[in-house]
Amino acid sequence: MADTPAASYPMIGGDGPCSYAHNSSFQRTAVESAQALINEGISENLDVKQLIFSSPSSPNSFSIADLGCSVGLNTFIAVQNIIESVKFKCLADDLCSEAVEFQVFFNDHVSNDFNTLFKSLPCDGQYFAAAVSGSFHGRLFPKASLHFAHSSYSLQWLSRVPKELLDKKSPAWNKGRIYYIGAPSEVFEAYSAQFAKDMESFLNSRAQELVNGGLMALIIPCYPVGIPPSQCPMFVIIDLLEATLMDMVNMGLVSEDKVDSFNLPKYYPTPQELRSLIHKNGCFSIEKMEPLVRNRGPVNESKIQDPILPLRTALEGPIKGHFGSEIIDELFDRYKKKFLESPIFSHVNKNQVQEMFILLKRRVA
Amino acid sequence: MADTPAASYPMIGGDGPCSYAHNSSFQRTAVESAQALINEGISENLDVKQLIFSSPSSPNSFSIADLGCSVGLNTFIAVQNIIESVKFKCLADDLCSEAVEFQVFFNDHVSNDFNTLFKSLPCDGQYFAAAVSGSFHGRLFPKASLHFAHSSYSLQWLSRVPKELLDKKSPAWNKGRIYYIGAPSEVFEAYSAQFAKDMESFLNSRAQELVNGGLMALIIPCYPVGIPPSQCPMFVIIDLLEATLMDMVNMGLVSEDKVDSFNLPKYYPTPQELRSLIHKNGCFSIEKMEPLVRNRGPVNESKIQDPILPLRTALEGPIKGHFGSEIIDELFDRYKKKFLESPIFSHVNKNQVQEMFILLKRRVA
Repeated sequence: MADTPAASYPMIGGDGPCSYAHNSSFQRTAVESAQALINEGISENLDVKQLIFSSPSSPNSFSIADLGCSVGLNTFIAVQNIIESVKFKCLADDLCSEAVEFQVFFNDHVSNDFNTLFKSLPCDGQYFAAAVSGSFHGRLFPKASLHFAHSSYSLQWLSRVPKELLDKKSPAWNKGRIYYIGAPSEVFEAYSAQFAKDMESFLNSRAQELVNGGLMALIIPCYPVGIPPSQCPMFVIIDLLEATLMDMVNMGLVSEDKVDSFNLPKYYPTPQELRSLIHKNGCFSIEKMEPLVRNRGPVNESKIQDPILPLRTALEGPIKGHFGSEIIDELFDRYKKKFLESPIFSHVNKNQVQEMFILLKRRVA
Repeated sequence: MADTPAASYPMIGGDGPCSYAHNSSFQRTAVESAQALINEGISENLDVKQLIFSSPSSPNSFSIADLGCSVGLNTFIAVQNIIESVKFKCLADDLCSEAVEFQVFFNDHVSNDFNTLFKSLPCDGQYFAAAVSGSFHGRLFPKASLHFAHSSYSLQWLSRVPKELLDKKSPAWNKGRIYYIGAPSEVFEAYSAQFAKDMESFLNSRAQELVNGGLMALIIPCYPVGIPPSQCPMFVIIDLLEATLMDMVNMGLVSEDKVDSFNLPKYYPTPQELRSLIHKNGCFSIEKMEPLVRNRGPVNESKIQDPILPLRTALEGPIKGHFGSEIIDELFDRYKKKFLESPIFSHVNKNQVQEMFILLKRRVA
């Protein structure tokens, strides 16, 4: 599988102007908008008596993992909300929330900036923090050691580029494109099949790691069925990047081969596709699955800062990994120009990102 | 307590010439020499049936923490040995070692280089790794969540410089010195009292975190009673550093006040002192306590590399924290000259570091 390297590119770490910590307010609004749903989900579905207080001899601890945590505030906000919801549920069930000790595992790829994560941990002593490096498409924790798993805006990243896309003899060879929109159906099918494999390995790993009755909250950006791709900001963004790269090929700044062999390891499933993959896996019941209603609408980052920075933060990793760091500044300068000149952002509906909130419960094994 | 900052200086991270990863063969020999003792200790004292296999419904997992792990091979060697010893013990007790899942927590100060640690983790999938940042003088893990704790060459570092040393009105004001050797008895007593406090908080924290019957292996460099300090390499090393700093004061390169207010947060207890502190704490039984016999004698690092590098790796953190990074290169150049010119290393007995191996067992609470 050396020709299909795992797509383990983290968001940009540290504290600089391009860092995820400073360019993730879009993702943060999603996390904040899910708070009430998580609170409600825990209140309705978490059997705290059974999971935390069942054995008088064993300690009352509750383990949480945030999968694909990156760095910055977002992961701390998500974790804090889960802890408060569990405490509230204990109180509602007449159980002593003071007696519960929380352990939180922050997970991301090995190249994530865990040093910055540790330095920015809240100091309020509400939980014992630990970091875990590695792909969440595989096992990360011992069996039945987690009570709650959370993953926001991470599962749309594929574990690897489907290998057919790089095979010149395959009908899925993705020449002149970096994505599946506008590509032959074989390209789309290869992406879709990879996403299905990734979801299966993700769900199987979590099924082993979560206790029976444990919960998992997922926020996944989806393709809203019925809307043409040209009206979906998430596709338009990639389309402009592809056009920028092709401009650079035409100017002799980037080789055509390099673009032919680059494919963005990202896939937006439909809500129906997600539901069907979860059913097929069978380890979890779907307790809640609904579109996220953003508390304050999608953030128009162009109003508050350089509109390219959040996109650069998210896209730079895989691009740098493939093209090298030399072209990055020029690429994003050209991309920014194209982005600002494009009339498309004045008439696409910015709400056309369907973010699904899904609450799963581990079935009794 | 702002006047007595915690002494949270990690070993030098990364992979450079001064890094702990490249300058810790002395500590590595200690870890390797303790392997047989840990193996024997686990074989004689760990009730694997009770700790791992007691409940048919709960998963068979075993949690290990290495406290003060730094970066580099040493921590991986220690952990590997503990895991092999536990598996061997399972086999010896006719229990299925294959069924056991190991989770390993690597702990050090928040400024430790965890990114490098994660990148150098062995990929053999023998255990689930996690990193935990923070001082081991406080709580780091939920109650009764660890089965084995390990700490090698870490407990001699104090959590903070005793505040009396910085008080000009105190008889323990340590003017013109950076350590307790050659100082008034009040200085020594302040160091000793701080070590006692640190051991008490360390043992109390671990007593809560370890399961009943859980084990803890410690390697602590001690002062061998009866040997004059001038014959002990660990004191001579600090003495030469103090003399180098005073030379720099006399040359106007460092202010006298700066040296007066600097004290190395390091203490070498006697074996008797250690035993008495563990007894006084009362949470652990001492299953083994003996001087470590180094497999291949102390490594004479001067033969294999710059003899100053391992000392610089260990000492640079607190010095840089106090004096700033500007003086570091000059200080260690001068220190090296003094070190190589000193006749003392030709006639001190290099074996005069008494390293104690201690195996503790958590008493039933």
